[in-house]
Amino acid sequence: MKKDIPEISLQRLPVYLNYLRSLSGDDGKYISSGAIAAALGMGEVLVRKDLAYTSGVGRPKVGYVREELIAALEDYLGCNIKKQAVLVGAGELGRALLAYGGFEKYGISIACAFDSDPEKAGSIVAGKPVRPVSELPGLAEEGIKLAIVAVPASAAQSVCMELARDGVKAILNFAPVRLKAPDGVVIRDIDVAANLAVLSNML
Amino acid sequence: MKKDIPEISLQRLPVYLNYLRSLSGDDGKYISSGAIAAALGMGEVLVRKDLAYTSGVGRPKVGYVREELIAALEDYLGCNIKKQAVLVGAGELGRALLAYGGFEKYGISIACAFDSDPEKAGSIVAGKPVRPVSELPGLAEEGIKLAIVAVPASAAQSVCMELARDGVKAILNFAPVRLKAPDGVVIRDIDVAANLAVLSNML
Repeated sequence: MKKDIPEISLQRLPVYLNYLRSLSGDDGKYISSGAIAAALGMGEVLVRKDLAYTSGVGRPKVGYVREELIAALEDYLGCNIKKQAVLVGAGELGRALLAYGGFEKYGISIACAFDSDPEKAGSIVAGKPVRPVSELPGLAEEGIKLAIVAVPASAAQSVCMELARDGVKAILNFAPVRLKAPDGVVIRDIDVAANLAVLSNML
Repeated sequence: MKKDIPEISLQRLPVYLNYLRSLSGDDGKYISSGAIAAALGMGEVLVRKDLAYTSGVGRPKVGYVREELIAALEDYLGCNIKKQAVLVGAGELGRALLAYGGFEKYGISIACAFDSDPEKAGSIVAGKPVRPVSELPGLAEEGIKLAIVAVPASAAQSVCMELARDGVKAILNFAPVRLKAPDGVVIRDIDVAANLAVLSNML
């Protein structure tokens, strides 16, 4: 882990990267922290501080060279280092995640999925093999450290413990339950329904 | 919007609710803030403060009556008020969200989807009709205020503006772009790939 950056700043780096990538050559060679801040509805000082972590330093008056800033962000986020992840749970959401192409721009590819249902194991979804969960212990040998969990809530904690035993160090959890991270494992929970419920409450 | 609760506390309420719902009758009638805090890896003072917003007040020594606390959380989160949401973008992720049953426990049902692809419009996915985007202006009349956006990044901002014109007040955005909220509209962005990239960086 890059210990020098606060997690909250780290979380914003993909937002900058997405924005900068969305610009075209017509938008000019340079971009200022003020322009980035205005486009993203953020404070300029914050933007400058976040970007400084990536070694992106703007030049007085003109700002950042856009291509250099993109490269600095990609480098910092490890987009150029190929990483493999696995997915556990090939249900509706899992299958959508297998078909989702968005991970590649961060250098991440989903190697395969695992499912406890013998009818699913052995199938191919979006070009990725679905393997039986009994093969999870093989992950350690394959050197895979990233996993996405999309199993039902009732199974999520035990899957998480199994993944930790198999050498996984980071888990993105879509099961609607807060997972307790085993030692040395980082977890992010994304509860889609809870997010919508909270939004609905803010009306 | 319930103005008396900080958003950060509001976001934790579904976490408590999920946990309490996961317990069975065997776990006893009462539960203490300490037990909840320990189960979720949170601080006890924080738990007590969050739950106080929902009118859930524990009794000295024994704690909360679990069923009462569940009812208070459900009431506060509006789970008993039926609400409809729509989904824009019936691609892979959109289709998975249509099939996803998790919204109902918060009183939310997905009424239908919209897609700009004439081949998709008119089809039925997971029992929900997919309508052409030209019918979005009808939402105002239907009184729908919640929307999920699962369109490509390049289309997301214009879809968001269209939804705002159609009376939508809250948008859950899965497109990997930070949306600028029109006046009076609240937005939450969930960038699945960015979350995995950030996790991978924390290794």
